[in-house]
Amino acid sequence: MGREIVTLYMDDLPKYWYNIQPDLPKPLPPPLDPLTREPVKPERLEVLFAKELVRQEVSTDRWIPIPEEVREVYSLWRPTPLIRATRLERALKTPAKIFFKHEGVSPPGSHKPNTAVAQAYFNMKEGTERLTTETGAGQWGSALAFGCMSFNLKCTIYMVRASYEQKPYRKTLMKIWGADVVPSPSDRTEFGKRILREDPDNPGSLGIAISEAITDALTSERTKYSLGSVLNHVLMHQTVVGLEAKKQLEMIDEYPDYVVGCVGGGSNFSGIMWPFYYDVVSKKAEKEVEFVAVEPTACPTLTKGIYTYDHGDTARLTPLLKMYTLGHDFIPAPIHAGGLRYHGDAPTLCLLAREGIVKARAYNQVEIFEAGTLFSRTEGILPAPETAHAIKAVIDIALDCEKKGEEKVILFNMSGHGYFDVAAYEAYLNGSLMPYEYPEDEVKKSILKLFQLYPWLRELSD
Amino acid sequence: MGREIVTLYMDDLPKYWYNIQPDLPKPLPPPLDPLTREPVKPERLEVLFAKELVRQEVSTDRWIPIPEEVREVYSLWRPTPLIRATRLERALKTPAKIFFKHEGVSPPGSHKPNTAVAQAYFNMKEGTERLTTETGAGQWGSALAFGCMSFNLKCTIYMVRASYEQKPYRKTLMKIWGADVVPSPSDRTEFGKRILREDPDNPGSLGIAISEAITDALTSERTKYSLGSVLNHVLMHQTVVGLEAKKQLEMIDEYPDYVVGCVGGGSNFSGIMWPFYYDVVSKKAEKEVEFVAVEPTACPTLTKGIYTYDHGDTARLTPLLKMYTLGHDFIPAPIHAGGLRYHGDAPTLCLLAREGIVKARAYNQVEIFEAGTLFSRTEGILPAPETAHAIKAVIDIALDCEKKGEEKVILFNMSGHGYFDVAAYEAYLNGSLMPYEYPEDEVKKSILKLFQLYPWLRELSD
Repeated sequence: MGREIVTLYMDDLPKYWYNIQPDLPKPLPPPLDPLTREPVKPERLEVLFAKELVRQEVSTDRWIPIPEEVREVYSLWRPTPLIRATRLERALKTPAKIFFKHEGVSPPGSHKPNTAVAQAYFNMKEGTERLTTETGAGQWGSALAFGCMSFNLKCTIYMVRASYEQKPYRKTLMKIWGADVVPSPSDRTEFGKRILREDPDNPGSLGIAISEAITDALTSERTKYSLGSVLNHVLMHQTVVGLEAKKQLEMIDEYPDYVVGCVGGGSNFSGIMWPFYYDVVSKKAEKEVEFVAVEPTACPTLTKGIYTYDHGDTARLTPLLKMYTLGHDFIPAPIHAGGLRYHGDAPTLCLLAREGIVKARAYNQVEIFEAGTLFSRTEGILPAPETAHAIKAVIDIALDCEKKGEEKVILFNMSGHGYFDVAAYEAYLNGSLMPYEYPEDEVKKSILKLFQLYPWLRELSD
Repeated sequence: MGREIVTLYMDDLPKYWYNIQPDLPKPLPPPLDPLTREPVKPERLEVLFAKELVRQEVSTDRWIPIPEEVREVYSLWRPTPLIRATRLERALKTPAKIFFKHEGVSPPGSHKPNTAVAQAYFNMKEGTERLTTETGAGQWGSALAFGCMSFNLKCTIYMVRASYEQKPYRKTLMKIWGADVVPSPSDRTEFGKRILREDPDNPGSLGIAISEAITDALTSERTKYSLGSVLNHVLMHQTVVGLEAKKQLEMIDEYPDYVVGCVGGGSNFSGIMWPFYYDVVSKKAEKEVEFVAVEPTACPTLTKGIYTYDHGDTARLTPLLKMYTLGHDFIPAPIHAGGLRYHGDAPTLCLLAREGIVKARAYNQVEIFEAGTLFSRTEGILPAPETAHAIKAVIDIALDCEKKGEEKVILFNMSGHGYFDVAAYEAYLNGSLMPYEYPEDEVKKSILKLFQLYPWLRELSD
């Protein structure tokens, strides 16, 4: 009787992060300098990131030790529970078993602090005194504020001005945790000042905020920059999720047929998926596992994007990365899952998708809020709109199992709670949500523009 | 190394609630009918409440079985973790050990569903089809919406209009969980209509909302009313908190010197305290335990109120209850801890305070937000403003231990998270909070008015 919750103790907290790089089906295409067309040397990244993080970024070590000090902060909310969604199963009348890893229990309410805490730690060890970053709705900003507070680092967060004014809650959370939150564009950087001179009411964008955060780090003493997704070291820090889940499923003698997560840049999905992928490549998996990445139809990177080199940011400050992309100047519709509005995806994830190891699905936001609401009505927890994408896919898979009478095991990453997104649910309940679907033609136009910018890219794309 | 978290499994979920009534130091003074001056017969309560709840209300059985169906819903978030606040201890440099029971992990985010689920279940069993209640900020309303959803009951929530308009988040949560949320005063009841005719812009009050909820229940078929605190059966349902905590502390060989909780009506404090009080009266306690109830200086019921008979509500619909009171017409200052703005307290709690078994402390809201912020900066979790009152007391006790070099064990009830109260923290951070203190003279004036209303009350008061 009752719900299955598998709990681990502090001692079960992983001692190593899993690094997928030695186990990729092909070597990862290197980041390219758009001017020289040459692979970017890791040393060049050290002006922005701590040395140890750059080392992790390119490391081919399979297991990267998690420092005790990081594990100690993790222990404020980790190991997170693995929960069987019994009441959801019953509502769906499915023979499938649905498990989720509840990352929403962290203080900032999502998986993001898994990497924020690690990044703050390695920076602190190398003498960094301040970290800068950008944030949209504030999910990542609040996680980094929390990480910096844990190791007494200062933290400056450039928050898109429109969100700063309209979504004050996470901003306050960042301030409670001691961060300096700056509406962007700001007068803190030359770049910001220039924009404000031309347009004092500029609402800002993630692209502008990234540029400000990077500029601030580059022009200040003992200051580095921090990123919340896409990069290898960031994704690697998230593998505590999958490593714990594996141990928890083992305890109850289960193994997943499906591992599901939503994808913005790819970090929460990679975090739960990589350790199971390791089982597959090392022939330790008990059965075939299907890895399902879920994205919004408004930002269909994996399902409609093109696999080519592109910049990671709108402002073209980052090197070119080989990935599925909708074009770096793509501006997604204003869907409520702000964390999934990214034109590209992590290069490792894109490689796995390209090789057919990861399957992608896309859903519109009306469907996903319907799924999130059903989840909350059965399991209680209100999922973040991002997470509701994963839940929609899980429900579809479970209904399919019902049709086929298959007793599959589905595991998904409950990447965050939706208590700061209640207004979005209100919009769903009163029927004012637009579904939004991004057409494939538009992607092609965007990529043509990219090829006009870098004609030599055509050869490198496929 | 690392944080101590003591986790229980589903099987450890209590099978009985603990009822303090047989163990009270004196019999509880009965509720009185203000017209007849006679004790109110339990049967009269059955027009409003399910029979089984009325039976529990007056029961002298020490252990009341928790139905399996209720335990199954509890298992969505219970047993809740018991956590040692190691980082807070370190920040305070205290030799004391601080443990808290984290009730904020429930779907509505507080301890309230412990009783909401039980009340919905017993009503469902007796054929009730709909429950009504009132809510201010929405903490209780969202818990009852969740409880009703769990057993397919309809739920009508009269929400104070000012909160309905200014605090939309919990309102939406109630709607997600299927409740009908009505801004009060409303045109659903004659009472509400009359108020609206006189003043169409009336912002509402908890008193008006209670009257509407009760009227609705009394005038509708298969409809009962539900209350979130004060009554014996409500407090009893909360004892799962203390019973679990006792088991968890036993597992690590600890026993509290202090048990601390904030007090609005008294349910979260009683929930954690009663099981330890049982140890004391049955001589099972390993040592002396101090029970500390914490309230706001803006609503100092236990610290400045008078122990007498008074109505439980502003509209004088309830029988007279013997309790510490600030007078039923007392309107507390608009502090952010909305859940603690109640003029009275549960009669059982008041009796224990009167007998010196419970010690009360009061703090102003500037102090408590300072404490809540320190807690969030060390332990991560953002506490509700109500809970921050308990935390302020815990910090004071711990600092006192530091002075005296005493290694005491402090246990408190983390009754709810503050993710819906971030705006209040913002007000604290920007220095715009008023401390508020309610003067003792005003209480005396209020009580004089009560004695003018019921002159015969003088004899019954002490």
